[in-house]
Amino acid sequence: MKKIKRIGILTGGGDCPGLNAVIRAVVDTAILQYGIEVYGIIDGYAGLINKQLRKLGLKDVSGILPRGGTILGTSNRDNPFKYPEINAKGEKTYRDVSERVIKTVEYNELDALITVGGDGTQAIANQLYEKHGIPVVGVPKTIDNDLNGTDITFGFDTALTIATSSIDKIHSTAESHHRIMVIEVMGRYAGWIALEAGIAGGGDVILLPEIPFRMEKIKEKTDNRTKKGKRFSLIVVAEGAKPQGGEVVYLRKVDDPNDPIRLGGISKYVGDRIEDMTGIETRYTILGHVQRGGSPTAFDRVLATRFGFHAVEAAIKKKFGYMVGLRGQDIKTTTIKEAIALPRKVKPGCDLIKTALAVGTSFGI
Amino acid sequence: MKKIKRIGILTGGGDCPGLNAVIRAVVDTAILQYGIEVYGIIDGYAGLINKQLRKLGLKDVSGILPRGGTILGTSNRDNPFKYPEINAKGEKTYRDVSERVIKTVEYNELDALITVGGDGTQAIANQLYEKHGIPVVGVPKTIDNDLNGTDITFGFDTALTIATSSIDKIHSTAESHHRIMVIEVMGRYAGWIALEAGIAGGGDVILLPEIPFRMEKIKEKTDNRTKKGKRFSLIVVAEGAKPQGGEVVYLRKVDDPNDPIRLGGISKYVGDRIEDMTGIETRYTILGHVQRGGSPTAFDRVLATRFGFHAVEAAIKKKFGYMVGLRGQDIKTTTIKEAIALPRKVKPGCDLIKTALAVGTSFGI
Amino acid sequence: MKKIKRIGILTGGGDCPGLNAVIRAVVDTAILQYGIEVYGIIDGYAGLINKQLRKLGLKDVSGILPRGGTILGTSNRDNPFKYPEINAKGEKTYRDVSERVIKTVEYNELDALITVGGDGTQAIANQLYEKHGIPVVGVPKTIDNDLNGTDITFGFDTALTIATSSIDKIHSTAESHHRIMVIEVMGRYAGWIALEAGIAGGGDVILLPEIPFRMEKIKEKTDNRTKKGKRFSLIVVAEGAKPQGGEVVYLRKVDDPNDPIRLGGISKYVGDRIEDMTGIETRYTILGHVQRGGSPTAFDRVLATRFGFHAVEAAIKKKFGYMVGLRGQDIKTTTIKEAIALPRKVKPGCDLIKTALAVGTSFGI
Amino acid sequence: MKKIKRIGILTGGGDCPGLNAVIRAVVDTAILQYGIEVYGIIDGYAGLINKQLRKLGLKDVSGILPRGGTILGTSNRDNPFKYPEINAKGEKTYRDVSERVIKTVEYNELDALITVGGDGTQAIANQLYEKHGIPVVGVPKTIDNDLNGTDITFGFDTALTIATSSIDKIHSTAESHHRIMVIEVMGRYAGWIALEAGIAGGGDVILLPEIPFRMEKIKEKTDNRTKKGKRFSLIVVAEGAKPQGGEVVYLRKVDDPNDPIRLGGISKYVGDRIEDMTGIETRYTILGHVQRGGSPTAFDRVLATRFGFHAVEAAIKKKFGYMVGLRGQDIKTTTIKEAIALPRKVKPGCDLIKTALAVGTSFGI
Repeated sequence: MKKIKRIGILTGGGDCPGLNAVIRAVVDTAILQYGIEVYGIIDGYAGLINKQLRKLGLKDVSGILPRGGTILGTSNRDNPFKYPEINAKGEKTYRDVSERVIKTVEYNELDALITVGGDGTQAIANQLYEKHGIPVVGVPKTIDNDLNGTDITFGFDTALTIATSSIDKIHSTAESHHRIMVIEVMGRYAGWIALEAGIAGGGDVILLPEIPFRMEKIKEKTDNRTKKGKRFSLIVVAEGAKPQGGEVVYLRKVDDPNDPIRLGGISKYVGDRIEDMTGIETRYTILGHVQRGGSPTAFDRVLATRFGFHAVEAAIKKKFGYMVGLRGQDIKTTTIKEAIALPRKVKPGCDLIKTALAVGTSFGI
Repeated sequence: MKKIKRIGILTGGGDCPGLNAVIRAVVDTAILQYGIEVYGIIDGYAGLINKQLRKLGLKDVSGILPRGGTILGTSNRDNPFKYPEINAKGEKTYRDVSERVIKTVEYNELDALITVGGDGTQAIANQLYEKHGIPVVGVPKTIDNDLNGTDITFGFDTALTIATSSIDKIHSTAESHHRIMVIEVMGRYAGWIALEAGIAGGGDVILLPEIPFRMEKIKEKTDNRTKKGKRFSLIVVAEGAKPQGGEVVYLRKVDDPNDPIRLGGISKYVGDRIEDMTGIETRYTILGHVQRGGSPTAFDRVLATRFGFHAVEAAIKKKFGYMVGLRGQDIKTTTIKEAIALPRKVKPGCDLIKTALAVGTSFGI
Repeated sequence: MKKIKRIGILTGGGDCPGLNAVIRAVVDTAILQYGIEVYGIIDGYAGLINKQLRKLGLKDVSGILPRGGTILGTSNRDNPFKYPEINAKGEKTYRDVSERVIKTVEYNELDALITVGGDGTQAIANQLYEKHGIPVVGVPKTIDNDLNGTDITFGFDTALTIATSSIDKIHSTAESHHRIMVIEVMGRYAGWIALEAGIAGGGDVILLPEIPFRMEKIKEKTDNRTKKGKRFSLIVVAEGAKPQGGEVVYLRKVDDPNDPIRLGGISKYVGDRIEDMTGIETRYTILGHVQRGGSPTAFDRVLATRFGFHAVEAAIKKKFGYMVGLRGQDIKTTTIKEAIALPRKVKPGCDLIKTALAVGTSFGI
Repeated sequence: MKKIKRIGILTGGGDCPGLNAVIRAVVDTAILQYGIEVYGIIDGYAGLINKQLRKLGLKDVSGILPRGGTILGTSNRDNPFKYPEINAKGEKTYRDVSERVIKTVEYNELDALITVGGDGTQAIANQLYEKHGIPVVGVPKTIDNDLNGTDITFGFDTALTIATSSIDKIHSTAESHHRIMVIEVMGRYAGWIALEAGIAGGGDVILLPEIPFRMEKIKEKTDNRTKKGKRFSLIVVAEGAKPQGGEVVYLRKVDDPNDPIRLGGISKYVGDRIEDMTGIETRYTILGHVQRGGSPTAFDRVLATRFGFHAVEAAIKKKFGYMVGLRGQDIKTTTIKEAIALPRKVKPGCDLIKTALAVGTSFGI
């Protein structure tokens, strides 16, 4: 069996704290433990398509562990199977340019390709593996925590920490002003950040994509608080939360310029209605991109470092088409195919939901 | 001359880190140094209108120094000279109920009234003093730093710290994604937060209410960066920033439900246009209420404590109609009238602007 | 079967972020979900011995979720089976006063007693259960993470976060001054904080109680760095770390006034020797009590809330003599006896150690 | 008059947050505004003695603004007027090698030399200026805030922020355990950090080098608190604090291996005695080097950027032998000679002391 001599690594999709920690762990492990060379691919799959890559040495990754972002750059628009081009008529068309990826991998003699990314990145990795035999190893990455094949992904704890600290800050304003404050957090189609930040920040109401809500039930909760002399409420809303059918569904379409969320989104929707219904002054805040930047938490740095180390181990064992993941206390591998088959969502009867209900939180139902 | 035996204190206007530190310093100083009683007035002027106040002892203020918000509550809608009421026809009307304030002050034998608040709160305090002889002492409070009579107000440093830390977080996303990121910070009609957070966070463009901008000049700056191989830019926008005449003026009207800023505001305006003009992917974030909540910075705690101490000293010296303020290293008093005559704004030729220009920042002109 | 009507709760042992979150979750769950009364016992077992307890309502726990410390107070010197007393001769003696605990429990009709604490607290709880049939339910608490029966305890993530952020700060000094910096973290006889903070902070050397070190091996590592042009090193030391036999063993005895660690401890030992051996300027810092105070991280708040909820559930199911714990993603119970049988220590061949080795960390062996 | 074409910059003395912000501002201002070249001198005066310097371009300073430490390195042992050497007999001797500095400055055609540092660094700068006519411009730097010629130095606010946040953390332990907690902060011979962090953190006792204390007075304060039912106290101690004559004076000698502070210092001294005197369990913590590392606060970044800009302005105006400084809201220059004539100390009757006294703080007298 041919030995692994050279590994490529790319980071795809949205920014996520811990990417640099993965890159550093891959480079350190490969060079120090195995004498393997590492090539960093620039801007995700775009670098494979356009032959942009560079050798990474120990010095290149020195000091990057605590830094946000990715030294390799990223891109979330460069699917080699559906690559955007402008044709002669000036129209945007899509073309399969995956053979360019094969050429780059072959020309640079990459014996393995570590793809660090979320469902989109891993879906492409799996296609490259299944259709073209590219030797990929996946590393799961998403602040939304919506990937299967791992209990948790790096980036999530940092996003959760920032969201919780923001709720803490808004709490004092809510209390001083006797207001209802609505705080919208990220998570796309999954409610993990909202659920855990809601529990950690003591949210009175938590609204999730997985549990469509009813405005009257939210009002019931705030009325109930008013009766007890609590003149303020905190509502934590996932960006993908939506009211029960019958009311307009405000579901986010990522990168859609007409996306209602870019015009105030679900938090504005909830805020405006609850102010009308209760007469209590209401403000909303959309935390936005601050949740996905900055230095990763200690938890995320440790997890990212473990993922990087195990990705190299998996490459050496030629577990191609697999993704590393955390299971309990251990790092295990699972096929990328299985990991991306279905998004990982909050189950309405899960223990976190029960815990939140036990301490008096309403989910708007 | 009659001795001061009892002091009232109220907090008015928007939430601001350091309010509790002022309250604690007033109570501790009054009781421990002078044996003076302190009454806390609930929810700003509303408490004086509706006779809501309570005696504050040392225990009531124990442990509140590091906490955000105000234990007294606040309100920014209860002007005793223009008190909102619903008449028989169900219409909203305004009435002068300032005699109720006089009654509350007299009935409770308050020999001095410390009013902690911004321009709105101090304007009312001054009216109460000038028209009715209420013995007020002002303590300046605004995260926007737009009050005269003091070099700086508590709350500003905390807001600046939060804004800067958010810019740091967004920096990594901008760099990894090669995006233009627009970050909107508070400040109402004054650009202090944007200016200092822009300098501290290394903003490439800073847009201020005091310096109306031109989109072409912003584009010039981002083009210039692109030429140098810098594929991202950070634009820090004050919520009150506006383009030069000819283009739509997006000036925030506070608490106006049709306020364009509540629909995406000036940061969306700038973000959408710069994306169109440059073709570079752009995202915007409105930091919002997280800037005015949470535990005050050490700087703000020290300043708030000094203000509280000196407000009691001023009350004892019967410097009514005066406001305490920081001048250089010292706490001095100035008449409230003078302090609120004009807002404190960024002067286009000031040293902070020159500093920002020197390190290459553009103000969009 | 008699229904649970009243629950007691106490917090024992050292301060730990998340205690208030547990108390709040217990009170909210008991009152809101089951209509059960909760009594808070003051200062750990001392309150049971001296009949110091008070009823806790929803208001008592409102707002305490994000706060460090414990509103109930704690004590780590009041073992009811070995209670210190001064006898007639003025000598300190110890006596079994556990019957006083029984009386307090019976008199106050406590149907269950939730004991939140580490190995000491749980050992006493188990004795009370086994010898006297006191209906205890344990909640594990220790920043050191050295308890079995749970994958992790609340407080650990906060301690880890503070330790890592301190290492980040010290990193810049090490690098600017070309120094060796030694940072001593907590953990008693277990190396968890040092190991994870060492990985997260990029420590060049990590010294653990579980892996006795040799000074020459530390020197080898720093020499190696010098050769590569890296003129600084970071050494993360657990307070319980010790050199291999032959050299003086500096093992911490808690609360011993002659404890060498109170005189500079193992970090001074390592720092002085490495400076002598390498000639490189060296400084040491003992992080100390800052690691166990302050607001808990989001992770710890969520975990503490889950523990509080499940402790009430366990009490209702009369799982006395059991302790709640995290296993993978779930909360499970285990007998207290089993949980405290052996301390949970770092295993030299575990995955975290392998990860640290892979990225080039030395354990001084 | 010859135009300035090339500037050198060095950073000397202890690590201090904001050094990189100064360097970046100097480089950006020099290149962008004036087309002046900048040379960075490696490791403080050592680089001038040993000809270690390198040209700094815009790219070299890109992204360093928020980073702790100094990209130029520093040294606090390389006085060119008293340079340590080992003679033939193996003894350490000192020699004047300042002519080497002149050679480096002349050979590299440095028309100005910006020296960023504290009293030691500036004293050498002034000697170079006065004795050899080296065209120096000083930038004050010290977390201790003990330099004249400026109201405040960058680094101080960051140190204050870290110290205050540590006091906040320790507060919860003190309260939960009913302990006296002693926290030792930096500041050398000046008490600024202790004084302001003590006010900001609500210290019950603050001990400063400028106000020698008496243990009985500290006991009086803690007794007083016990009487009021407050079972804990926080004592904030400056590292240079000392008891009134008659008791052993524990004054820190910097870098002395027999320094008692390295063996537990003044905080141990105070902690041991107060525990003996009151019988209340006491713990002490020495914050140490975490206070001088890490990312600078927004305040320090703005101040450091202003200093950097004005240092270049001063160089262009050939204000050699001068140091920039903050006076009120403005940056002004003063002669280095005057700035270092006397250390800037806390005056016992100053407003900060009065403020602390007003809220009930004891200074141990």
